[in-house]
Amino acid sequence: MAYFENINRITYEGHTSTNPLAFKYYNPEEKVAGKTMEEILRFGVAYWHTFTMDGSDPFGSGNMIRSWDKFKGMDLAKARVEAGFEFFEKLNVPFFCFHDVDIAPEGADLRESYRNLDEIVAMIKDYMQTSKTKLLWNTANMFSHPRFVHGAATAVNADVFAYSAAKVKKGLEVAKELGAENYVFWGGREGYETLLNTNMKLELDNLGRFFHMAVDYAKEIGYDGQFLIEPKPKEPSKHQYDFDVATGLAFLQSYDLQDYFKFNIEANHATLAGHTFEHELHYARINGMLGSVDANQGDTLLGWDTDEFPTDLYATTLAMYEILKNGGLGRGGLNFDAKVRRGSFEQEDLFHAHIAGMDSFAVGLKVAQKLIDDNVLDGFIETRYDSYNHGIGKEIVEGKTNFQELEEYALQLGEIQNTSGRAERLRATINQYLLSVTFA
Amino acid sequence: MAYFENINRITYEGHTSTNPLAFKYYNPEEKVAGKTMEEILRFGVAYWHTFTMDGSDPFGSGNMIRSWDKFKGMDLAKARVEAGFEFFEKLNVPFFCFHDVDIAPEGADLRESYRNLDEIVAMIKDYMQTSKTKLLWNTANMFSHPRFVHGAATAVNADVFAYSAAKVKKGLEVAKELGAENYVFWGGREGYETLLNTNMKLELDNLGRFFHMAVDYAKEIGYDGQFLIEPKPKEPSKHQYDFDVATGLAFLQSYDLQDYFKFNIEANHATLAGHTFEHELHYARINGMLGSVDANQGDTLLGWDTDEFPTDLYATTLAMYEILKNGGLGRGGLNFDAKVRRGSFEQEDLFHAHIAGMDSFAVGLKVAQKLIDDNVLDGFIETRYDSYNHGIGKEIVEGKTNFQELEEYALQLGEIQNTSGRAERLRATINQYLLSVTFA
Amino acid sequence: MAYFENINRITYEGHTSTNPLAFKYYNPEEKVAGKTMEEILRFGVAYWHTFTMDGSDPFGSGNMIRSWDKFKGMDLAKARVEAGFEFFEKLNVPFFCFHDVDIAPEGADLRESYRNLDEIVAMIKDYMQTSKTKLLWNTANMFSHPRFVHGAATAVNADVFAYSAAKVKKGLEVAKELGAENYVFWGGREGYETLLNTNMKLELDNLGRFFHMAVDYAKEIGYDGQFLIEPKPKEPSKHQYDFDVATGLAFLQSYDLQDYFKFNIEANHATLAGHTFEHELHYARINGMLGSVDANQGDTLLGWDTDEFPTDLYATTLAMYEILKNGGLGRGGLNFDAKVRRGSFEQEDLFHAHIAGMDSFAVGLKVAQKLIDDNVLDGFIETRYDSYNHGIGKEIVEGKTNFQELEEYALQLGEIQNTSGRAERLRATINQYLLSVTFA
Amino acid sequence: MAYFENINRITYEGHTSTNPLAFKYYNPEEKVAGKTMEEILRFGVAYWHTFTMDGSDPFGSGNMIRSWDKFKGMDLAKARVEAGFEFFEKLNVPFFCFHDVDIAPEGADLRESYRNLDEIVAMIKDYMQTSKTKLLWNTANMFSHPRFVHGAATAVNADVFAYSAAKVKKGLEVAKELGAENYVFWGGREGYETLLNTNMKLELDNLGRFFHMAVDYAKEIGYDGQFLIEPKPKEPSKHQYDFDVATGLAFLQSYDLQDYFKFNIEANHATLAGHTFEHELHYARINGMLGSVDANQGDTLLGWDTDEFPTDLYATTLAMYEILKNGGLGRGGLNFDAKVRRGSFEQEDLFHAHIAGMDSFAVGLKVAQKLIDDNVLDGFIETRYDSYNHGIGKEIVEGKTNFQELEEYALQLGEIQNTSGRAERLRATINQYLLSVTFA
Repeated sequence: MAYFENINRITYEGHTSTNPLAFKYYNPEEKVAGKTMEEILRFGVAYWHTFTMDGSDPFGSGNMIRSWDKFKGMDLAKARVEAGFEFFEKLNVPFFCFHDVDIAPEGADLRESYRNLDEIVAMIKDYMQTSKTKLLWNTANMFSHPRFVHGAATAVNADVFAYSAAKVKKGLEVAKELGAENYVFWGGREGYETLLNTNMKLELDNLGRFFHMAVDYAKEIGYDGQFLIEPKPKEPSKHQYDFDVATGLAFLQSYDLQDYFKFNIEANHATLAGHTFEHELHYARINGMLGSVDANQGDTLLGWDTDEFPTDLYATTLAMYEILKNGGLGRGGLNFDAKVRRGSFEQEDLFHAHIAGMDSFAVGLKVAQKLIDDNVLDGFIETRYDSYNHGIGKEIVEGKTNFQELEEYALQLGEIQNTSGRAERLRATINQYLLSVTFA
Repeated sequence: MAYFENINRITYEGHTSTNPLAFKYYNPEEKVAGKTMEEILRFGVAYWHTFTMDGSDPFGSGNMIRSWDKFKGMDLAKARVEAGFEFFEKLNVPFFCFHDVDIAPEGADLRESYRNLDEIVAMIKDYMQTSKTKLLWNTANMFSHPRFVHGAATAVNADVFAYSAAKVKKGLEVAKELGAENYVFWGGREGYETLLNTNMKLELDNLGRFFHMAVDYAKEIGYDGQFLIEPKPKEPSKHQYDFDVATGLAFLQSYDLQDYFKFNIEANHATLAGHTFEHELHYARINGMLGSVDANQGDTLLGWDTDEFPTDLYATTLAMYEILKNGGLGRGGLNFDAKVRRGSFEQEDLFHAHIAGMDSFAVGLKVAQKLIDDNVLDGFIETRYDSYNHGIGKEIVEGKTNFQELEEYALQLGEIQNTSGRAERLRATINQYLLSVTFA
Repeated sequence: MAYFENINRITYEGHTSTNPLAFKYYNPEEKVAGKTMEEILRFGVAYWHTFTMDGSDPFGSGNMIRSWDKFKGMDLAKARVEAGFEFFEKLNVPFFCFHDVDIAPEGADLRESYRNLDEIVAMIKDYMQTSKTKLLWNTANMFSHPRFVHGAATAVNADVFAYSAAKVKKGLEVAKELGAENYVFWGGREGYETLLNTNMKLELDNLGRFFHMAVDYAKEIGYDGQFLIEPKPKEPSKHQYDFDVATGLAFLQSYDLQDYFKFNIEANHATLAGHTFEHELHYARINGMLGSVDANQGDTLLGWDTDEFPTDLYATTLAMYEILKNGGLGRGGLNFDAKVRRGSFEQEDLFHAHIAGMDSFAVGLKVAQKLIDDNVLDGFIETRYDSYNHGIGKEIVEGKTNFQELEEYALQLGEIQNTSGRAERLRATINQYLLSVTFA
Repeated sequence: MAYFENINRITYEGHTSTNPLAFKYYNPEEKVAGKTMEEILRFGVAYWHTFTMDGSDPFGSGNMIRSWDKFKGMDLAKARVEAGFEFFEKLNVPFFCFHDVDIAPEGADLRESYRNLDEIVAMIKDYMQTSKTKLLWNTANMFSHPRFVHGAATAVNADVFAYSAAKVKKGLEVAKELGAENYVFWGGREGYETLLNTNMKLELDNLGRFFHMAVDYAKEIGYDGQFLIEPKPKEPSKHQYDFDVATGLAFLQSYDLQDYFKFNIEANHATLAGHTFEHELHYARINGMLGSVDANQGDTLLGWDTDEFPTDLYATTLAMYEILKNGGLGRGGLNFDAKVRRGSFEQEDLFHAHIAGMDSFAVGLKVAQKLIDDNVLDGFIETRYDSYNHGIGKEIVEGKTNFQELEEYALQLGEIQNTSGRAERLRATINQYLLSVTFA
């Protein structure tokens, strides 16, 4: 049976096509610097936003009625798997991602939840035999159920900590079973509402302990996927511990975990923290911690996580620039942690939105590669910092000098000559590269 | 001669006094938990905001004409020292703080700048013989002069790095000479305007090198003050490297500097980074990194650093709570990095503003001490996290368990019982403590 | 039967009471400037946050299980009425507020929704016979149901406009039936997601038409309550038409509606629009448009509507100051459009939260009245603007001069003398008034 | 003599040109829908950012040394005029804008200021004889001088009101003398620091009086330029009265001024108020109040007015869309109220920045015109709101129905059918139009 009846497989038709259900720029087989777009971009579909999200928001109930919604319980879960693989195939994506509760309903107790999960995991595994679509990452939802009201690994209640451990243990087993490339931790309730009732030190210590147990257990069962932390500064909590990449890095360093984790960076979480998307990617990259990407976009005039599908070509270009400079995403990918707007409630919009996102990153990829090929930014930067390649600058970067010597040097300097940073011209250059990108 | 002619020494007159030029709550000699208010609060006057700031803003020229402004050049610098010590004495503060260029004008070259500085430092030292007011910290201004347009220790130009090294070298010598309790680094231009022209990795590496040289030089000359980094997320740069305490901590850890630095935390910088003031203090405290405080307040509806004098009693209470829990500020203090509003341009306003700030922290201190004495928050927190004191919780915090055991435990759990976090009642309790604070 | 079994009627016990379920500052019978606190503050309970809200948020399902939740459908609706009047009585509040769907479930069609509503309205009317609690305002929820996805009175679909008209028509009849003091319009979906698909002119014109029809119908049925518009800048929509009071005023003026409407001002909506709560109150007041208040507070470091119970005494003081200067709220009141935090999920927290809010406004009232009695702010302002009481200033305000005369006057002026605005001292004064407020 | 020695006249060289000092997209003579780009875009240079701004910011002194800075006083003012017209010619712009104090220094008193102004105005008039560049608008700077610390037309001091009247009177005379197309009012200090010391009602009344006097005086001297108000929500004041277009409209309506004023809309001011640039343009347009544009861009992750040169092609496209739908800007224009970054301190950057901005608007113009030609957005919108063209919808917009009839209609409705708003697809469409824009 088909859940997306009137939708055909999405194919690359090029930018002059007027078919709204075709890729205009994303051509999975087109090669960019020796690799196919599919290999570089590693797109993933987010199970939750695409198959379980119903359009509800804090002021309105669900308004998206899907073709699989006629089922209930485990039947619904199974229908979603069927719909999912139909969607993956029609969209032609190489990856998908899920939380445990996205794919299988919680049971009356943990044991039943396990059973539900096992049944669906087996079904997914089956589907994966014949599908090209792989699991980019899975994770455990430790924020939706009331038991997590005061946190999961940072819960005020040890029972919740234990329950969370069980969920992640199971999650790692599922990751191994399905060959997940990564395992993600997003601490939706790991934070606080008010410091007045919070023991932050104990909570962070417990989080460190939790992560070490996860590392140990993964080793024990031979799961070798990459562990990823996904920073977000706020929402749902007033303050979340994994505020941004830098905060996450400080945490990992403080608890000797930096060798086991990288970051899953979400565009909208970056902007909520006051950073650009490319800043977070860049900062993670130069620290060797860029793992994967939640590809979406926010609205910087709004203060909550809007999780929009990414269409801003500046953002996709600068993101792809960082990713290419990183030598690609390795085991990571571009997961569309993005939801259609409440007003885009028709099933067809799921395709429009993913196409919009995939095309936007395809454009970004080509513009970024051209910027690299032409040595546009690196060339400018090389010249700009040239003084560190010789003389006193070389001494500095080689660690061969000290304050006394530098003072002697400074005392004989005349007026120091600086040169323009050319911010405006560089921005105009980005525009020119964007407007001149060519497609077959 | 007197620069504040009609102002008498500010004394504690109690909350019923109608004298606007009297302390209503700050009584330097009053003991709180065994120490005097003066010893605990360690107030400092910021030289720049009080003696050199002229009220200009991006849309208006200076409108504050001070009694010392009839002088020029080095005479003006000397008049400011005289006015400063008169002010310190009349305000009865134990500390002050300055940047090099606040106290002495830059010369035609570095050598002349040194000479100007030496002359004023000698004069200040002289004044300090007979004044109770000590130097809380000094620092080098490496952001105002055009040469720092692209950074100082993170400059794109090695000459600027060298020049900055010379300034900090001199600053450390001045710190030693005047017995500064701390030496502060605020990286006003250590950041970027756009990533398009920035080599962040090189800049951060250079910053690490710079700090190591500073540590080495301080050891060499035997200066044993505490080194402090002052985080600020943005302004003047679009992004500043010392974004917040967590980012600073990640940096210090990455460059093996965490043993040599603590943080100087500014309220308005905290809120610009999306944090509460108390969050930054708390996070620094539990990491053993709370060094000193720039006591001001921002306007969270505005997006720039307003540097207002602190009058919000919630903020001063929660700040003092963190400081008391830290065992005090050690060598740090509460420096009023705060400026009178442009509309408060009369010389008298300098007193009104400092009195407002000092009284507000005095109230905060008393309310916070009472909260501690009555075990209000700690008691609540102790109960809330009690499950970690025994059973599985104890196993967790003692590192004696693992995912397998925790899963076994979780599997036999019934529905988990959580209890209310009582955020609303705790806030009402803070109000009750605030309204019931008593003064002689 | 009792829904709040272990809770006794909340009484005023004074600030020294240690009973957390007692008023510490709110004494309904205490007179302030000739009226009782109850008469001035006119507190209202919001039906939705207190009796239907379940603690869910965008990342978590409902975690608040109430004693009435064992019922379903109309039985649940009736249980809520019972619980409601028990709560009103125990809390001793004079008012409550509701949306239509809060009190009665929607039926299979509009007719059945009407029947459900009629049944519950009759029941409420019955309860009101013996209760002191009156209806401050009611409204129609035109944002939660999927049909309102693209607006209600500004819907892209005329059927939705018609449906909305029917709901408001019914709402006005209910208002009349229950003697509602006001009828409120909050345009939760009256706005847009993107201008790309929006005809704003038509939507605003339709909104104007809708309001005129409402005015006409109220006249027709003889309902004489006050019409109120509740501004909110964003959320759920990206942009909402009733952005703030000024925007609402422009709209009312453009559509000749200014004589029929006032504003219902919510603290958290004010801050989301970039204004202080007191700004919105003040602006409405001086335009004769201050109608009623949704008493809550937001978190200015978060970007969404947190709807917290109001505990900030600065905000309650400055709000009460505006309200007192307005000669009170007239037919309006202080409705707690506030919800307990997700972490405060126990039924008892509903009392803690309301007590916190009521006490906070009681304090605000007393501090504000004292500021007025002592002519603190008005006195300062009178002096500050004194130049408009005579000479050229008097000519100006009396409209007796022009640019030519003013130029002549200006040409003979020497340097203009301004005086300090004393912002810091005024803030310190507010603190002194706050700390010296006394309670029996 | 030449102030921009090595810079030749900027010409259109097309997007394949590698000359950074050439227009890539802006071809003044290219026709778009029957008019030349120059006629449609009506670019203006802002005198202040280009000829007087020195790169200083709140943390740093001026770092931009211009070729005319060797002069002082009136000689400097004259050199700027010379440099200005050289710049206008080399950049080939049809307009410029200034504040009085940009072109001539203030004198020791008002009379001397007049004399200085007269001398420079005569010189400018002379230059305009032979230059194609006209005056888009002028205005009076009533915010920089200390006398305006508490406002100008809303000053607390009647002397300041009178002084301001004199400045605007003179400004109108200058506008007439130089044939200014518009006269602008930006109320940089018309607002408040704190409500505690403010009489907002009196201040707004005075502002109304001031504007009426300006209208009267313009009539008297026969100046027929368009009056423009430029909204800005905050900075330098904590709150500014002309918060946004809607607030300005409410004010104009309240004081019967709506027939005499339109709005000068600045992109960065829009975002500071929480709006998109296109929202403000659209709202002004549908109210018949779109007058002129201050073409710049802000950084929505920063909270102050960065006044960047506009390079975001989404913003320029959507802005030009509104402008084209408005039938153009009439007497208004696109004034670059934008400043080069502090890091872009070389004189050459002034050209790079203006070219970047002009090219960006040229692209925006062509993309917008193509969107209109292809009826992309209007077509979608027409269909979307089609229900208002017939049946009950037609009754609604024609004002022929009422709540009773609408209720009857609603009661017989089945489930209402809505359709998707297609936000994602529309955004993808904008990308396609952007990427397919063609240039000779």
